[in-house]
Amino acid sequence: MTTIGERIDTANVRAAERLMDSQPVLVDVAPAAESIPGMSSQTILHAGPPISWERMCGPVRGAVIGALIYEGLAAAPEEAEELAAGGTIRFEPCHHHQAVGPMAGVVSPSMPVWIVLNKTFGNYAFCTLNEGLGKVLRFGANGREVIERLKWIEMILAPGLARALEGTGGINLKNIIAQALQMGDECHNRNVAASNILLGELLPHLLGSGLERSVIREITDFMAGNVHFFLNLSMAACKVTADTIAGLKDCSVVSLMARNGTDFGLKVAGLGDRWFTAPAGIPRGLYFPGHTESDANPDLGDSTITETVGLGGFAMASAPAIVKFVGGTPADALDTTREMYEICVARHRDLLMPALDFMGVPLGIDIRKVVETGIAPVINTGIAHREAGVGQVGAGILRAPMESFHQALMALGDQYE
Amino acid sequence: MTTIGERIDTANVRAAERLMDSQPVLVDVAPAAESIPGMSSQTILHAGPPISWERMCGPVRGAVIGALIYEGLAAAPEEAEELAAGGTIRFEPCHHHQAVGPMAGVVSPSMPVWIVLNKTFGNYAFCTLNEGLGKVLRFGANGREVIERLKWIEMILAPGLARALEGTGGINLKNIIAQALQMGDECHNRNVAASNILLGELLPHLLGSGLERSVIREITDFMAGNVHFFLNLSMAACKVTADTIAGLKDCSVVSLMARNGTDFGLKVAGLGDRWFTAPAGIPRGLYFPGHTESDANPDLGDSTITETVGLGGFAMASAPAIVKFVGGTPADALDTTREMYEICVARHRDLLMPALDFMGVPLGIDIRKVVETGIAPVINTGIAHREAGVGQVGAGILRAPMESFHQALMALGDQYE
Repeated sequence: MTTIGERIDTANVRAAERLMDSQPVLVDVAPAAESIPGMSSQTILHAGPPISWERMCGPVRGAVIGALIYEGLAAAPEEAEELAAGGTIRFEPCHHHQAVGPMAGVVSPSMPVWIVLNKTFGNYAFCTLNEGLGKVLRFGANGREVIERLKWIEMILAPGLARALEGTGGINLKNIIAQALQMGDECHNRNVAASNILLGELLPHLLGSGLERSVIREITDFMAGNVHFFLNLSMAACKVTADTIAGLKDCSVVSLMARNGTDFGLKVAGLGDRWFTAPAGIPRGLYFPGHTESDANPDLGDSTITETVGLGGFAMASAPAIVKFVGGTPADALDTTREMYEICVARHRDLLMPALDFMGVPLGIDIRKVVETGIAPVINTGIAHREAGVGQVGAGILRAPMESFHQALMALGDQYE
Repeated sequence: MTTIGERIDTANVRAAERLMDSQPVLVDVAPAAESIPGMSSQTILHAGPPISWERMCGPVRGAVIGALIYEGLAAAPEEAEELAAGGTIRFEPCHHHQAVGPMAGVVSPSMPVWIVLNKTFGNYAFCTLNEGLGKVLRFGANGREVIERLKWIEMILAPGLARALEGTGGINLKNIIAQALQMGDECHNRNVAASNILLGELLPHLLGSGLERSVIREITDFMAGNVHFFLNLSMAACKVTADTIAGLKDCSVVSLMARNGTDFGLKVAGLGDRWFTAPAGIPRGLYFPGHTESDANPDLGDSTITETVGLGGFAMASAPAIVKFVGGTPADALDTTREMYEICVARHRDLLMPALDFMGVPLGIDIRKVVETGIAPVINTGIAHREAGVGQVGAGILRAPMESFHQALMALGDQYE
């Protein structure tokens, strides 16, 4: 007779296989309203677990205000705040719609989204396009330059990329991630190589499209000028991968981790749709000149979907140069990855790290191991200013709160009583 | 009173400063005949120290034959061999003309060359454009596809790049190398990141030029399809850097290392124009399917100019993934770099390696230290088939022959007698 523990082990092996067998392929760019299931004209998606307007942190509020102005639903921040508080806008997590969003993670109907297909399993995931650094919506900024950039993304960048993608037959994102891990990226806070590779892959199709030359120039200038451009694709690739284990019976592997700047939340593959939440932590990090930890909003964004499937903090060993952005030393980066093996169920077959003798990234966080070892998953992240409308103030590292893993393990135990 | 040893130490510090202060900037592409000083219509340049047609190895002969056909000086290989043996062609080292060439290093008058300026010191260096992998002239192949590609490089690629470069005001190659060292390149046998970065920098100027769109497409397809494209620029950047110490009185730092497939040769900054040569070794390496070490030509090419100024084998710690190309393990790659510090006079101020806690690359090979420690410089390299006309058969690692360092040290001693 198999024990419960053995049943869980078997399910976890199957989960790791699904994660590794996934083949995320970028297939299109289209408006959220036309792409994301269940997205109405009154829907605003946000990062992390569910949250009301009242409990939203500054940067998420700032991004919501910006999105309402961008959509033409409000003319000014005050009007947008009133609308947001008025109850007609449906706030829902990206994760309830096969989507992910970096930092505030705000997605409104007109925003274009990447459409990523898992070729192996047939599921889709969605993510907005990266706006670059500085004053950007995802960090809660919402001034005129932010809205104008979003409009340019909608009117010029997205249609151009959609046109180029037609010629590609789809771009295999797992291949790009595998290469980038050999080129100093961890595909969460360092995406320099992956962004370059993506540009190289799209270029012949941009040039081969009917697009005007000046438009191609605008698009390639924007892409080449943004070393984080690939982040949102990495996130969509990770989401379309992680979703393949959601609902897997007896599985104790985490299927998502996400933060809304107020709460951290996770789901476990074998525990259905239930969120296990705890207060979001504050990253230890490096702050931009003029800013300190007192400016920092608690941890924010769906980008922890990367750590959920072995990238980001889990693949730090591949990205020693990232310590100049998030803090620590290259030795810490190696140690971080090594430690994460202790809470994971597998080493990835295809995503290999040269610095660890081509070992695969640590894959599939087992909540049992997290609680047993007391080792919480490492997350590396950008840091938003705690007030609406400001933007990014730094980047850093933190641990997912143990409390949510304890809750999840108790729920797992309850299931077998 | 200062001792001779102190005078040499002082000169070596100055050499390291010159190497570090150098700012190689890509400024143009133009035909060799119009760019390289002392290049006549009957001149053929080759890699390494001086060598006669009779002593040339198979791949250099193969490349010379190809170059004579490419120049229209011979219609077929037999005719080209006769011409080459006849005494009218002047064979001279690239290094005698401020130039470098990878592998066979053959440069004929019509071939376009990169023109690199050292902004700090005002000197220039030249190198041909990289042809890609497979059957290519630099590995001794000379069939129709090789000649046709060279013609395309001359007629389409080079004029297009020259046009694009006009708009740039020069591209700082040191910046690209510094970035690439943080992205898994060592800028000799791994140039994946640097080639991507170069493409990104040239792209706006290609699109902004008056070039036809189909031409831009051809150029960018060629560049994006060749992960070694940056190699020849890395070499020219290293040459224009190394040349700043040539002739520096009392200096015991190596100013060049180069191989012609028969002999290895080096020069020392304080020892004038004299070559110190020894038989070229055979790399230990990884061979392409169907080939073994018995097919290998001895060590070949001017690309050891990269090791001369701290890249290539000396910067292996930055490029753990390269071991899949040249052999060994990532730990070996780290150890190799660490060992090279023992024979160098400095750690580079700007070219940093994240994997070694952002230590600068080992810079400036002191022949005294080489002889004293018995540690010969490490070179990583491509491997050509020993017969003319075949091409590359693998890649590997070897040590520069100690004999030439012993000779050089004796010459240094003689100077102070």
